[in-house]
Amino acid sequence: MRRRSFVSGGVAMLGTSGGAAWAQGDPLPSWNAGPAKQSIVDFVARTTTFGSRDWVPVPERIATFDNDGTLWTEQPLYVQNAFIVDRVRSMVARHPEWRTREPFRLALTGDHSQLASMGEKELLEIMVASHAGLTTDEFSRIVLDWLAVARHPRFKSPYTDLVYQPMLELLAYLRANQFKTFIVSGGPIEFMRPWAERVYGIPPEQVVGAAGVTKYAMPTPDRPVLRMEAQVAFNDIFAGKVEGIGRSIGRRPVLAFGNSDGDQQMLEWTAAGSGARFMGLVHHTDAVREYAYDRNSPIGQLDKAWDEAIRRSCLVVDMKHDWKVIYPFELK
Amino acid sequence: MRRRSFVSGGVAMLGTSGGAAWAQGDPLPSWNAGPAKQSIVDFVARTTTFGSRDWVPVPERIATFDNDGTLWTEQPLYVQNAFIVDRVRSMVARHPEWRTREPFRLALTGDHSQLASMGEKELLEIMVASHAGLTTDEFSRIVLDWLAVARHPRFKSPYTDLVYQPMLELLAYLRANQFKTFIVSGGPIEFMRPWAERVYGIPPEQVVGAAGVTKYAMPTPDRPVLRMEAQVAFNDIFAGKVEGIGRSIGRRPVLAFGNSDGDQQMLEWTAAGSGARFMGLVHHTDAVREYAYDRNSPIGQLDKAWDEAIRRSCLVVDMKHDWKVIYPFELK
Repeated sequence: MRRRSFVSGGVAMLGTSGGAAWAQGDPLPSWNAGPAKQSIVDFVARTTTFGSRDWVPVPERIATFDNDGTLWTEQPLYVQNAFIVDRVRSMVARHPEWRTREPFRLALTGDHSQLASMGEKELLEIMVASHAGLTTDEFSRIVLDWLAVARHPRFKSPYTDLVYQPMLELLAYLRANQFKTFIVSGGPIEFMRPWAERVYGIPPEQVVGAAGVTKYAMPTPDRPVLRMEAQVAFNDIFAGKVEGIGRSIGRRPVLAFGNSDGDQQMLEWTAAGSGARFMGLVHHTDAVREYAYDRNSPIGQLDKAWDEAIRRSCLVVDMKHDWKVIYPFELK
Repeated sequence: MRRRSFVSGGVAMLGTSGGAAWAQGDPLPSWNAGPAKQSIVDFVARTTTFGSRDWVPVPERIATFDNDGTLWTEQPLYVQNAFIVDRVRSMVARHPEWRTREPFRLALTGDHSQLASMGEKELLEIMVASHAGLTTDEFSRIVLDWLAVARHPRFKSPYTDLVYQPMLELLAYLRANQFKTFIVSGGPIEFMRPWAERVYGIPPEQVVGAAGVTKYAMPTPDRPVLRMEAQVAFNDIFAGKVEGIGRSIGRRPVLAFGNSDGDQQMLEWTAAGSGARFMGLVHHTDAVREYAYDRNSPIGQLDKAWDEAIRRSCLVVDMKHDWKVIYPFELK
């Protein structure tokens, strides 16, 4: 059963023109024609046409995107969990106590169904504990080195190839229309920032997420470092997403996209602003090309946020029907 | 005795052209001709000329500025301390316990010399305690209402008129050359963000600073709020400035400007990056047009950071000699 509701705020004033940037072409070629694509193009046209009732001044064009399951594949494990499992395995000889201590023990089991249920909180705990003492530069290097060799168990691709082509187009389309695109993720900023600019075109200062505490130190003269401490500074999921937006952006988004219950508060917060608003949820409906899951999934559960989406004006994207391709490599 | 040293990194490759933005004019008309101005113009030319040895790609053009004493006047009291003193006075009838409890008691004394010694930490404590329970929107309104009526004790001007014209020009000059300008301040983000965009052209998401904890709540259906809690999330002074840069920007500045010992670590961190770097300190040398203070000042003490500036390649701006005007209203 397909359920869908759409952005509110009146009829598009400019039809399908989609603003100046793609006056001649299709800004979202990997989206199938239909109401989902149309609602996005209409929203951008309405909010960026000076004189339109829904025009949004450029500095207020803030768009926030969840990462896992919204911009890239989060099954069968959050990518940062796959990273952490590999890290814990490679470090356990030096930390034998991890074999019996949770959540490290769980990370070592290799049991995907159990690992899948490891929350962002447990993940962050392992992340900070296993990387305490490293400098932020060292950690970035470790993340990039891992991404260079790690492969997704089903697609056998680098994880950064498993980003959603339609969402890359949406990010670029918004930026071409002078929206500032942010990631607001339950995952740790330290894991996303090293590659988010290359992969999504989103610079580190626009990546908001969970974070560990860091400490400034000067171990050798004139060579200061920022060192990771074994302490979580904040989580960034559920209500924490809005708190993260307040702390790091300080302005309410006019557009927000998520895919799970962890994004519900961000969508609520976005919806409650005045003027035109766009809220979207990616619904994973394509078991053939990607994965199909929602209400009962331990990863990316979409349940309450879906009910809210139906009740309110939130676009629910049906990946199977709305997306012509899922991954960039399908275009080759 | 004037002490000054200059940015390192070789001779300017384009002389005084200063990049494309002001090819025909002077990008810094309120700066007197001389080595300080020249070093800035040379740095911008070198880092923005494609093919130059010191060229910096646009996404890496991060410039961070302290606020108090670097962008606006911090004497005889940090502006946020003047705000907090007024707030505590207006609220003390409802909080009689403040009359005897530090640091509230101190705030109520009206003794400027004692108030001046109140650190950013004490300030933030009062700030969060006296404003706990307010929503972030309510607090912004209170700040703007106060700024509309409060006047500086000496200049009798609104505080937001007491920003430094030469620094406004520098911010605009950097932005015209595709630098992204950030505030990295010991003061609280909640106090700066409501007006930083109008006054400095710096949007809220580029204002980094101390902050209180906020909590997301939904007191009435579909009307979520972010509420301020009576808890400090982090300070942003000394080493905290670098930690704040790591947390909020995630990329090392190529240019940083401060005016006091609280900025030393930010300058060190900036200096330790590879490639061309620019570090600057505003030295308050003009008792007639503004204030003159450095090594022994309880507010904006410039002592260790000055020694470091002399030892290293950091521009020390002499306000009296280097600035043609101090405040924008002098131009009228």
